[in-house]
Amino acid sequence: MRFFSDNAAPVHPAVLKAMAAADAVDTAYDGDALSRGLAARFSALFGQEVAALWVPTGTAANALALAALCPPYGGTICHRDAHVQNDECGAPEFFTHGAKLLLADGEGAKLTPDSVAAVADAIADDVHRVQPHALSITNATEYGCVYTPDEVAALAALAKARGWGLHMDGARFANAVVHLGCTAAELTRGVDVLSFGFVKNGGMSAEALVFFDPKLADATRRRRKRAGHLLSKGRYLAAQIHAMLDDDVWLDTARAANAAAQALAGAAGARLIHPVQANELFLRMTPEEAATLRADGFDFYDWAAGEVRLVTHWASPADEVAALARAIAAL
Amino acid sequence: MRFFSDNAAPVHPAVLKAMAAADAVDTAYDGDALSRGLAARFSALFGQEVAALWVPTGTAANALALAALCPPYGGTICHRDAHVQNDECGAPEFFTHGAKLLLADGEGAKLTPDSVAAVADAIADDVHRVQPHALSITNATEYGCVYTPDEVAALAALAKARGWGLHMDGARFANAVVHLGCTAAELTRGVDVLSFGFVKNGGMSAEALVFFDPKLADATRRRRKRAGHLLSKGRYLAAQIHAMLDDDVWLDTARAANAAAQALAGAAGARLIHPVQANELFLRMTPEEAATLRADGFDFYDWAAGEVRLVTHWASPADEVAALARAIAAL
Amino acid sequence: MRFFSDNAAPVHPAVLKAMAAADAVDTAYDGDALSRGLAARFSALFGQEVAALWVPTGTAANALALAALCPPYGGTICHRDAHVQNDECGAPEFFTHGAKLLLADGEGAKLTPDSVAAVADAIADDVHRVQPHALSITNATEYGCVYTPDEVAALAALAKARGWGLHMDGARFANAVVHLGCTAAELTRGVDVLSFGFVKNGGMSAEALVFFDPKLADATRRRRKRAGHLLSKGRYLAAQIHAMLDDDVWLDTARAANAAAQALAGAAGARLIHPVQANELFLRMTPEEAATLRADGFDFYDWAAGEVRLVTHWASPADEVAALARAIAAL
Amino acid sequence: MRFFSDNAAPVHPAVLKAMAAADAVDTAYDGDALSRGLAARFSALFGQEVAALWVPTGTAANALALAALCPPYGGTICHRDAHVQNDECGAPEFFTHGAKLLLADGEGAKLTPDSVAAVADAIADDVHRVQPHALSITNATEYGCVYTPDEVAALAALAKARGWGLHMDGARFANAVVHLGCTAAELTRGVDVLSFGFVKNGGMSAEALVFFDPKLADATRRRRKRAGHLLSKGRYLAAQIHAMLDDDVWLDTARAANAAAQALAGAAGARLIHPVQANELFLRMTPEEAATLRADGFDFYDWAAGEVRLVTHWASPADEVAALARAIAAL
Repeated sequence: MRFFSDNAAPVHPAVLKAMAAADAVDTAYDGDALSRGLAARFSALFGQEVAALWVPTGTAANALALAALCPPYGGTICHRDAHVQNDECGAPEFFTHGAKLLLADGEGAKLTPDSVAAVADAIADDVHRVQPHALSITNATEYGCVYTPDEVAALAALAKARGWGLHMDGARFANAVVHLGCTAAELTRGVDVLSFGFVKNGGMSAEALVFFDPKLADATRRRRKRAGHLLSKGRYLAAQIHAMLDDDVWLDTARAANAAAQALAGAAGARLIHPVQANELFLRMTPEEAATLRADGFDFYDWAAGEVRLVTHWASPADEVAALARAIAAL
Repeated sequence: MRFFSDNAAPVHPAVLKAMAAADAVDTAYDGDALSRGLAARFSALFGQEVAALWVPTGTAANALALAALCPPYGGTICHRDAHVQNDECGAPEFFTHGAKLLLADGEGAKLTPDSVAAVADAIADDVHRVQPHALSITNATEYGCVYTPDEVAALAALAKARGWGLHMDGARFANAVVHLGCTAAELTRGVDVLSFGFVKNGGMSAEALVFFDPKLADATRRRRKRAGHLLSKGRYLAAQIHAMLDDDVWLDTARAANAAAQALAGAAGARLIHPVQANELFLRMTPEEAATLRADGFDFYDWAAGEVRLVTHWASPADEVAALARAIAAL
Repeated sequence: MRFFSDNAAPVHPAVLKAMAAADAVDTAYDGDALSRGLAARFSALFGQEVAALWVPTGTAANALALAALCPPYGGTICHRDAHVQNDECGAPEFFTHGAKLLLADGEGAKLTPDSVAAVADAIADDVHRVQPHALSITNATEYGCVYTPDEVAALAALAKARGWGLHMDGARFANAVVHLGCTAAELTRGVDVLSFGFVKNGGMSAEALVFFDPKLADATRRRRKRAGHLLSKGRYLAAQIHAMLDDDVWLDTARAANAAAQALAGAAGARLIHPVQANELFLRMTPEEAATLRADGFDFYDWAAGEVRLVTHWASPADEVAALARAIAAL
Repeated sequence: MRFFSDNAAPVHPAVLKAMAAADAVDTAYDGDALSRGLAARFSALFGQEVAALWVPTGTAANALALAALCPPYGGTICHRDAHVQNDECGAPEFFTHGAKLLLADGEGAKLTPDSVAAVADAIADDVHRVQPHALSITNATEYGCVYTPDEVAALAALAKARGWGLHMDGARFANAVVHLGCTAAELTRGVDVLSFGFVKNGGMSAEALVFFDPKLADATRRRRKRAGHLLSKGRYLAAQIHAMLDDDVWLDTARAANAAAQALAGAAGARLIHPVQANELFLRMTPEEAATLRADGFDFYDWAAGEVRLVTHWASPADEVAALARAIAAL
């Protein structure tokens, strides 16, 4: 019974079906009809003209986004627990050619205008210090917390006032949207580039990079090829994204994952370190307690000393979720 | 009727079937059984212990291979018409952090020890000149020509004598193997890293990087992650490769592609610019002749002035191949 | 009366004289007798065979050193207030092609085995996290504190046990040596690469990179050229270094700078934030007090809120030092 | 008697004198009066507002210039015998983060609009090919040939029409100017960035980067620091440049070097491979003839089989030049 990652989930049947349907021969790379259709698809979703590119991983999406916003001699402010800082083996530094990540604080891995300004204001404006050029936030965050539209807008206002680009790592964007009950557009006001995640939410190997200023995508098309991320049979990636957007599959799968997390949250009670707003739970738990759960067949991740992480996903079996909730309550 | 790229071909049914079968939940990234099984699979194929990693594109495979063999301040000798030089938007330079490609000549995009030595010997051994650290060959070449095992061995001997690593871009390795009727092992004697292509040969989105010195793979595992090429659901890539190797599907598909090319070659006769040894044909053809073929519904690529490229693939319809052969003969 | 930087000091007359003497034509780049003589010179100083290269700046020295010790996908542990982290506009990231600086804590910008191990031990050993490959310390530190030979040796032991390279930023190495009364060799036991500073200590434009494993210098010679740091008239740089080493000028100038700092330290008393062990002083001081000193003609640097930095140098005029000491005491 | 490089020449006395005069303490880095005065100085020289930065080497100047004009995923067209391609150990690739040099042909290492357009027109405008973003020419060229103002203007017109930046490597700009008898401004119409060389012409360690669009310099100031090229005692570099510009020293020294070359050219006659328009001569010469000259005490560089290079400089002794001329004539 696996609760260690939404990356280990199966692929949604609609995605597999769409991939099989994409097998009809079409042009290579991203010249096919499915790939070319992404811009219109996301423009409709966001209610404005956007450019949209598929990439096979969230790490590629994030790193390409930062490279679009930050020059090699600049810096991007992010939370010190951000995925781009800790879990991508230096991908941002690789794609940006050595731009620095400038680390800010905040509860639940959420940045605030104050915590961001504190980092920026401590940097003297001279050539010795790396200057911020971008701000990167994750929604939902690495701790499963959600920025509201107003919180995003406040950070966007700060970024705009300082002349920075704003990137949103939306590996779990769907979980945030369904938690809030808002629209995708409402949650991205002022964002320049969104890494729109599908793989953790039922997809197989396709994430979308959404550029709210379509011109920003031009250089990224070249960086994508240069990074080896322009798949020659790109239609199989585009098909995944279309399938997830069709009939709001992406929202349904996120709702399922969030609901499973809520079921566990109810059982976890005072053990919760962060509010549960998406599909991740962080619990205080002694090693002995964790061992007890594992002896019962539950698999999950040790986070820090005395802390564990549980992750649900779109296909978490209801009986396994219920069993884990009971087991936690019984600790 | 499309003869412009083997990238535009459909995916082999065995591959699609294996991907669907991989949907059972397993560990993320490359910790799953299928991914972990690749080393044994390729070790058996090559008759020696190798390390093997999946990557989603041939460009990623090539660029990671060069980064494993050449430091940022070094150079890699390749043919001036090599894919790494002309068709990857600078991916080798990106992954190697600016190492240079040093361009050599040779008929049919095939290098010879003499043409390689000529490039190397013209480089003074001082800190002002970029020194060669690696040699990269493509088999079958960009012009559909095939290095024999002896030719590869001669280049490997030169590389070893000079202290260079040897990379083989095997985007069409299968086509070379079936053309020669040799084994994969015989065709890679002395090679350090092989980009073993599957996508042009019936796969969807998985190529293999084979390291004949397994230790060379360690840094590449980190570079792969850092480049955003460690897919979180890697089992779907590993499954493709296993499916292609099962029952020698990879050899059957290459044989079909080569046979289709031979059928066209017979019709092309004196128009052929290079011998046809794989699944690509380069023909002398006037613009008017090319227009005639296109008017008949054949789609292909203009190569250079007065030259066209035709590419067959594992699933090229027999009737379309026959029709094109007739049309060429009738020009 | 300038106390804001030892970078703003004049050049020692012996250096100017040696540069004029180097005007006799000799071979270009670093093939001249003076440049070729550096290895022997530093080997004698350190009592072991070393390789030594001149470079024009400390930033270049540090960044080349880190590039010699840390691959692009790795990390270097340093203090969060280190010059390499804060004052080089990302030079380490540029020269290492995006390796990360991993930030550790410690009083007076001094790392300890515990503070370093705490950073390293928190990094899971997988491909998602950037792994440490090197440790960089500054002696004397950015706060004018000095590591003793034993402290250096303890960090070197840790680095060796973990398989990391050890870099010492010795922009103020001379100040540390004279403070301790030890030898240069005693203070570099276990160090792999030393940035041996001369510019802050009376030189004009020459720092030395000392490789205690001479083989490590080979790639650096190429990186130096590739970074534009191989001056064509290198003899004028080598001459500076020889002049500083002749008759222990480098020790005399450091002694003078340290003595001036001590004179100020006596006056500063309880204002001192860090012990004064080199030529820098950090004082608690209100903006009003700072304004008073500036009104008296003293120029210095505001460090943080309520803190100022004073820097002495080899040629700080005795009367100005005395005047500043009196002024501080009178606040 | 050395004729192998103008890099091995002594430093002009006016330069040494100016450096000694710069010893008075001023602010560090490039905040001093001499450094700040460069923009006005070069603006006066070129008759338009320019930005001007010192750097210690021509390699740094060229590589920073290319980084200002060409993104990492782009290319710069240059002659295949250009210094940036052959003699900088990949500095352009390092500073541009892997942009490619695209090699064009031309007699005497001079590009023409036709030879440049031929390279560019062969590059398909898609994401697979690296697209040109800049053009780099060398004046005087690596073979001592000089572009006229009209020739520069024609290339500038091409660059502008294609949307490329134009860089001029002026390591021997002074030699070109005095050969033509034109002004510096006339020879740089349409140039975006000039590497204005002083070191080969009597300087010690200071070249100027001149940006004809001052805004282009902003990012370069950061790249310069990040590359370790912002010397902390920059006034000693600025002083060299001022001294060379004072009283047209730079023109006098170039005239002397060119005149020495003409004296040799007269003796070389039919041996000359290229017209002698600056201070370099390329002569056909058998190994036996070269050995004869060397036995007479002349030192020079073997260029290619049967070819030697002779270089004069501002201080080439008249008697040595005359002796070499006689010796060549006597071969």
